[in-house]
Amino acid sequence: MIDATLEAIRTALEANRVEEAIAALTDLHPVDRAEAFADLDDQDQAIILPQLDINDTADLLEELDDEEAADVAETLSTPFLADILDAMEPDEAADVLGDLPPKLAADALAEMEESEDVIPLLVFPDETAGGLMTTHLLTLAPEITTAEAIEYLRQTTLGSDTPYYLYVVEQNLKLLGVVGLRDLVIADPNRRIREIMDPDVISAKTDLDQEDVARLMIRYDLAAMPVVDDVGSLRGVITYDDLMDVIEVEATEDIYRLANVPDSDLSFDSPIGLSIRRRLPWLFLSGITALFASWVISQFESLIAQVALLAAFLSVVAGLGGNTATQTLAIIVRAIALDEIEPRDAWRTLTKEAVVGLFQGLFIGAAAAVGVYLWTGNEVLGLILGLALVGNMILATVIGTLVPLILRWLGADPALASTVLVTAVTDSVGFALFLGLASVFINYMR
Amino acid sequence: MIDATLEAIRTALEANRVEEAIAALTDLHPVDRAEAFADLDDQDQAIILPQLDINDTADLLEELDDEEAADVAETLSTPFLADILDAMEPDEAADVLGDLPPKLAADALAEMEESEDVIPLLVFPDETAGGLMTTHLLTLAPEITTAEAIEYLRQTTLGSDTPYYLYVVEQNLKLLGVVGLRDLVIADPNRRIREIMDPDVISAKTDLDQEDVARLMIRYDLAAMPVVDDVGSLRGVITYDDLMDVIEVEATEDIYRLANVPDSDLSFDSPIGLSIRRRLPWLFLSGITALFASWVISQFESLIAQVALLAAFLSVVAGLGGNTATQTLAIIVRAIALDEIEPRDAWRTLTKEAVVGLFQGLFIGAAAAVGVYLWTGNEVLGLILGLALVGNMILATVIGTLVPLILRWLGADPALASTVLVTAVTDSVGFALFLGLASVFINYMR
Repeated sequence: MIDATLEAIRTALEANRVEEAIAALTDLHPVDRAEAFADLDDQDQAIILPQLDINDTADLLEELDDEEAADVAETLSTPFLADILDAMEPDEAADVLGDLPPKLAADALAEMEESEDVIPLLVFPDETAGGLMTTHLLTLAPEITTAEAIEYLRQTTLGSDTPYYLYVVEQNLKLLGVVGLRDLVIADPNRRIREIMDPDVISAKTDLDQEDVARLMIRYDLAAMPVVDDVGSLRGVITYDDLMDVIEVEATEDIYRLANVPDSDLSFDSPIGLSIRRRLPWLFLSGITALFASWVISQFESLIAQVALLAAFLSVVAGLGGNTATQTLAIIVRAIALDEIEPRDAWRTLTKEAVVGLFQGLFIGAAAAVGVYLWTGNEVLGLILGLALVGNMILATVIGTLVPLILRWLGADPALASTVLVTAVTDSVGFALFLGLASVFINYMR
Repeated sequence: MIDATLEAIRTALEANRVEEAIAALTDLHPVDRAEAFADLDDQDQAIILPQLDINDTADLLEELDDEEAADVAETLSTPFLADILDAMEPDEAADVLGDLPPKLAADALAEMEESEDVIPLLVFPDETAGGLMTTHLLTLAPEITTAEAIEYLRQTTLGSDTPYYLYVVEQNLKLLGVVGLRDLVIADPNRRIREIMDPDVISAKTDLDQEDVARLMIRYDLAAMPVVDDVGSLRGVITYDDLMDVIEVEATEDIYRLANVPDSDLSFDSPIGLSIRRRLPWLFLSGITALFASWVISQFESLIAQVALLAAFLSVVAGLGGNTATQTLAIIVRAIALDEIEPRDAWRTLTKEAVVGLFQGLFIGAAAAVGVYLWTGNEVLGLILGLALVGNMILATVIGTLVPLILRWLGADPALASTVLVTAVTDSVGFALFLGLASVFINYMR
C-alpha cells in the first residue's frame, strides 16, 4: 500500500501537482507516512516538507528514525523547528535534539516554549529509565474528588497518546499512588482520589537500566511505569510503546553478541565502512584464538605427517564441540536475559548440562566412530574420534554454562565475548584431546 | 523480598500457623505470589491452596506457568475448578484448559457458567491472533451517547485489567471504530459514539501469525489490537501484555535457531531427556556436514603427509569463515525478523556484504599471512592462508546473506538451519580453497 502511495506521490510531484502529493501522503497513517517520506529522494522531501503544518511535521519527526529526523530538522528554520519540537512528545523531542549539532540544538531549545519538559530528559543517559521516560503525564492531588479529577482531564491539553494511568502525588511530587482511568470513570463522583487510588505502585529510579525496566514492566504487565528520583518524586513515565522498542533492542543485542557483532545499531543497511570497523575487531580476536588452536595442532606435526588422515577429522572435533557449546550458550544467555536463572541454580544447571554433554557425546561419538570405521576401515581411528567427541562435548556444555554465568557474576554482559572464549577452549582442548589420544594409540592405527 | 516471604511462609507452616502463612503470601503482588507459591514444595502447596478464595486462586492460576497451573488445577474438585475458570480472564482459562487432561477439561468446561467466552478461544491455534486474544472486551453501539456509554461502563463487571479501548460495533458485531477511554471521558455527554470514534482501526484476522501481530502492534504503537473474523466481525482483542510475551518468545526462537536449538520451549531447567532429544538431531546434522568437510580434506591426504603443518591452519580457515558467516547471518536474520529488509534490498545487501567480506578478508588475511610467516618462516604458506581467507570470507558474507533470504522466500523460517547450511559451505569450500592453493604452490612451500 505504501508502495502504491509512493508511486502516486512521485507521479504527482513530477507533474508539479504538489497538493495532490501532500494529500496522498497525509492520507496515510502517521507511521506509514514517515516511511513513505523517508523513501522519497531529498529533492522530493524538500518540496513536501514546507507544505506540512506544524502538527504533521511533528508527527513526521516522531515517527522517523532518529538520524533521519535530525537530518530533516536541520533543514528547518530555527523558530519553526522550535515550534515543532514544542508540538512533539517531550521524549521524542529530546531524542531529536540529542542528534542535532550542539549549536542548532541549543538555539532551538532557547526558542522553545515548553523547553522545561525537555531539558530534564536531556541529562539522563539514553539506556536508563530517565532516558526512556516522557515528562508528559497527568498527576492528581490526593484530596480532590473524582468529579474534580474528570473536570481537570477535560481541560488539560495533553494529546491522546498519554497513558491511561493518572499518578497521585503530594505537593513536592512525591508519588503516592496510581488511579486507572476506568476506575476514575466508574467511581462515585464525590469520592476522593486518595480513597480510590492504588498505593502499591511499582516505579523505577531514573538511573535504572532499560533492561531492568523492561523486566519489571513485563513481569508486572504494566502498560506504563512511573519514574521517580532518589527522594521518590515523580519525574516521568515510561509507556509500553517505548518498552516494546527496548525489548527488541535487547533481543537484537543478545543475538548480535552471540554472533560476535558487538554493536546492536549495525543493520543490513549500515554503511560498509562502519560495518567493517565494528565487525573486524571480533574477527581479529577469533583469528588469534584460532592461531592458538593451530599452535596446539602444530605440536603434533610429526604425528600428522605419519597419519595424514587425522587432519581430516580435526574439523569434526572442532565443529561439533563448537556447535554443542553454542546450543548451551544460547540457552544460558537467554535465561540470564529473561532473568530466569538465579545464582542458586548454577550448580544444578552445570551438572545437568554436563550430563546432556555426556549423552550427546556418547550418541554423536558412537555415530562418528561407526561412520569413520565404515569409511576408512580403521576402527582405532573411529574409536579415538568418538572418545575425543565425548570429552569435547562434555567440556563444551560445561564451559558454555560457566562462561556466561561467570561474566554475569563479574558484572559483564554474559553474551559479549562468550562465543569467542568458549569456542577457543573447545577448539584447543578438543584438538589436544584427539591428537593426544592418537599419539598414544599410534601403533594400533597404521 | 520473595525469598524472605518464602522463609516466613515455610516457618509458619512448620509451626502449623497456616493463617499466618496465607497472610504472608497474599501480601505479595499476585505475580510474586505465584512465584513464591511455585517455589513451595507439593505438601506446602496442598496445605495453602484450599485456604485461598476463588479470586486469589484464579489470580494464582493466571500468573503460574501454563504447566504448573495445570498441575494445580488437577488437584481441585471439578465444580471449584469451574468457578475459578469463570473468574479468570478467558484467554488464561483457555490456556489452562488446553493443558488439562481432555476428560477433566471437558467436565470443567461443562460446569462453567461463562464457557461461551472460553470455547471460541479453544479452537484457534496458540500462535495465531485467535490464540492470543481474549474475549473480554467492551463494545459500544455507534448511536448511543457518551453519557450512556459511561453509564454502561459503570455497570459492567469486567475486571480492571480490561484494556482502555472501547470498540464500536454494529448489531452483527461488525467492527466500525474505536474510542479511547480518555476521549470518551472528555467528550460532550450528548455526543454520539459514532461522532467521536476513530473509524481507521487497525485489526488482525483470527488466523494471523503471532509474529505478524507483534509487528503490527509495534509498528503502530498499539496497546490493544482487535481481532476480527473473515466477515469483519469482532471476535476478541489482543493486549500489550500478551504482545510482550510474543516479542520475547520470537526473540528466543531466533537466538535458539541461530544456535541450532530448534525448540524455543527448551530452557536451562528443561528435563535432561527432553534437552538431549531436541538438541541431538541438529548435532547429527552438523556432524554429517562436518564429515563431508572431512572428506574434502581427505582428498588432499598425500599433500598433508608432505606438509603436515597445513593441517594446523585448517581450523583457522574454518573458524574465520564460520565467524564471518555468523556475523552476517545474525544481521540478516534479525533484519528479516524485524521486517526491515524488503525483497528489493536483496541485491544491494548482497553486494554490500560481499564488499564487507572482501575487506575483512584482506585485513584478516594479511594479518594471518604475516603472523604465519613470522611463526613458521614460510612466506608461501602465509600467502596461501591469506588468499584462502579472502576467498572464504567473501563466500561467507555472500552465503550468509543468501541462505536466510532464500529460506524466507521459500516461506521457511530464515533462522532455522541457516547456521548449519552456511558453515557447511564455508568449511568445505574453505578447505578446498586452502588445500587446492597449497597443491598448486607445493613446490614453493617445502
